[in-house]
Amino acid sequence: MANITMKQLAHSLDVSIATVSKALRNSYEISEETKKRVLKQAQKMGYQPNPYAGALKRHQSKTIALIVPELMNNFFIQAIMGAEAVAKERGYHILIYNSMDSIKQEKGILKDLQNGRVDGVIMSVADTTNTDEHINDLILSGTPVVFFDRIRHEIETAKITTDDFTSGFRATEHLIQHGCRDIAYLSISENLSIDNKREQGYFEALSKYDIPARKNRIVLCDGSDDHNYNQIKSLLKQKPAPDGVFASVEKLALLLYRACHELKIKIPKELKIISFSNLRSAPLLNPPLSTITQPATEMGKTAATILFKYLAKKRPLIANENIVLKSELTARTSTLG
Amino acid sequence: MANITMKQLAHSLDVSIATVSKALRNSYEISEETKKRVLKQAQKMGYQPNPYAGALKRHQSKTIALIVPELMNNFFIQAIMGAEAVAKERGYHILIYNSMDSIKQEKGILKDLQNGRVDGVIMSVADTTNTDEHINDLILSGTPVVFFDRIRHEIETAKITTDDFTSGFRATEHLIQHGCRDIAYLSISENLSIDNKREQGYFEALSKYDIPARKNRIVLCDGSDDHNYNQIKSLLKQKPAPDGVFASVEKLALLLYRACHELKIKIPKELKIISFSNLRSAPLLNPPLSTITQPATEMGKTAATILFKYLAKKRPLIANENIVLKSELTARTSTLG
Repeated sequence: MANITMKQLAHSLDVSIATVSKALRNSYEISEETKKRVLKQAQKMGYQPNPYAGALKRHQSKTIALIVPELMNNFFIQAIMGAEAVAKERGYHILIYNSMDSIKQEKGILKDLQNGRVDGVIMSVADTTNTDEHINDLILSGTPVVFFDRIRHEIETAKITTDDFTSGFRATEHLIQHGCRDIAYLSISENLSIDNKREQGYFEALSKYDIPARKNRIVLCDGSDDHNYNQIKSLLKQKPAPDGVFASVEKLALLLYRACHELKIKIPKELKIISFSNLRSAPLLNPPLSTITQPATEMGKTAATILFKYLAKKRPLIANENIVLKSELTARTSTLG
Repeated sequence: MANITMKQLAHSLDVSIATVSKALRNSYEISEETKKRVLKQAQKMGYQPNPYAGALKRHQSKTIALIVPELMNNFFIQAIMGAEAVAKERGYHILIYNSMDSIKQEKGILKDLQNGRVDGVIMSVADTTNTDEHINDLILSGTPVVFFDRIRHEIETAKITTDDFTSGFRATEHLIQHGCRDIAYLSISENLSIDNKREQGYFEALSKYDIPARKNRIVLCDGSDDHNYNQIKSLLKQKPAPDGVFASVEKLALLLYRACHELKIKIPKELKIISFSNLRSAPLLNPPLSTITQPATEMGKTAATILFKYLAKKRPLIANENIVLKSELTARTSTLG
């Protein structure tokens, strides 16, 4: 790709160089619409501000950052370990950042990374992230970003995800095929595309089997453990109560088990449960938990491999690419018998 | 504390400035013994090489590093979250590094941190770490280090640990009081002081009840999951088999549960189990697992609070201090009934 100047970028957009420059610096003088146009064109043409600084920086830090939204989730731990295995082979360090599912924290981390602390970034966004600006700023500063799992569709780069719609569909269909007719879905966020896709899969399966979807069966658990636990208990105390639950993440399945134990609800006799989970203890729970397991280690490895492929080039602008890996459904006692 | 020069340091040791300089740079020309003397005196007198660089660096990065030996262990995840809570209040970022229980990796990380990437370090050493040099080098480069859990006694700084000897004693006594007479101990490392202390507590309890200690009841599980699983299965297949097991870390308890399920050994009827663990799922396992739980979040908070206290000073040389927090024993079905 040729070396694009700010002048060429301005020319292609039919605006002044000053406008481009201000737009890239996110100046208040420029409208949001124009900023978006400029950013989009800059990414498309492969424009890189301050190429000298970029060249100086590249391969100097021998470090990449991995930003995850939470650590109390084996999915992210395994993804980190996958990326670490690849980084270790290349002699790179990995810095792990926890955004704690806070967009404010995430913005702070990305701003911090603009100083060239790392050569590249692998990230999964916070469940509160509803904008792309801070991520685009980092990319334009010359630090490439690869997404995994919790992605932002709007940003042009490589995105490693799993087949969330299909998995949501299969999890729900599995409950239906084992006798459930009134299935609840535990959601962790209204913002996340992975959550939306799992939920859409759930609705699609209900529709296939002509089971009416009810609004009070979608339980949003986007707060503290205590808040989520109360949400779940309220669900289980409804009359009639659901006969199946599909949990979008493992921490909700553990809270659900706790609530069932407390309320003396028998799993699977009175309630069948399936959950997305990378818990090592899933087969050891009482009863063993049926799971949808994402290939987390593989996702981390893939994200790192793509990032390193681009870092080896002179101008690491990552092409848009969607890589979708398959999750695996493992039926255990919590949905059988 | 006054500003110590290299000259004063050399004078106090009755050696030349060149010797001090070379010793601090870890030159091959200087004997190990002299290096140790110089390092010790440098720490004692609060000597800081290149104070200008140190001053420039301090409070610039607004970042601290947290180095853990593994991530697939809820103890470390909770400790990270405790430190993060304190860091967040102070407007600091935390970089998390995983040494993967490798001293080589740990050395690489500490070397990387000598460039002033962070203002301070909180760390738990790898189970293969059997030397202090790389840590002393970092401290002498002006970056203070606080230890938690897996500490190096030889280094002069603040160390946050738990009452491992007492906990090992109580865990073993608990098994004895519930009828066990032939108890095995699953160890994760021969290097780690925490493991040694837990094991000493185990021996002490056996001794109190006049139960003979047998060598083949100490099972070293310091390899891969597969290796450790085979070690555990060999133990359970011995004749006679043990009637109780005390596991030093939660991952070994999960492997032990898996082995019992596979070999159809009934817990707690045929085998009673207690383990160090911060697993959220411990009460939900089949059967619920009796645990010794370390106050991990509190340990992370305490380590961060001490580090920030020293970072607020002009010369952050951390005084030696041992802070020992208490773990909690929770009896559940795996040792009762």
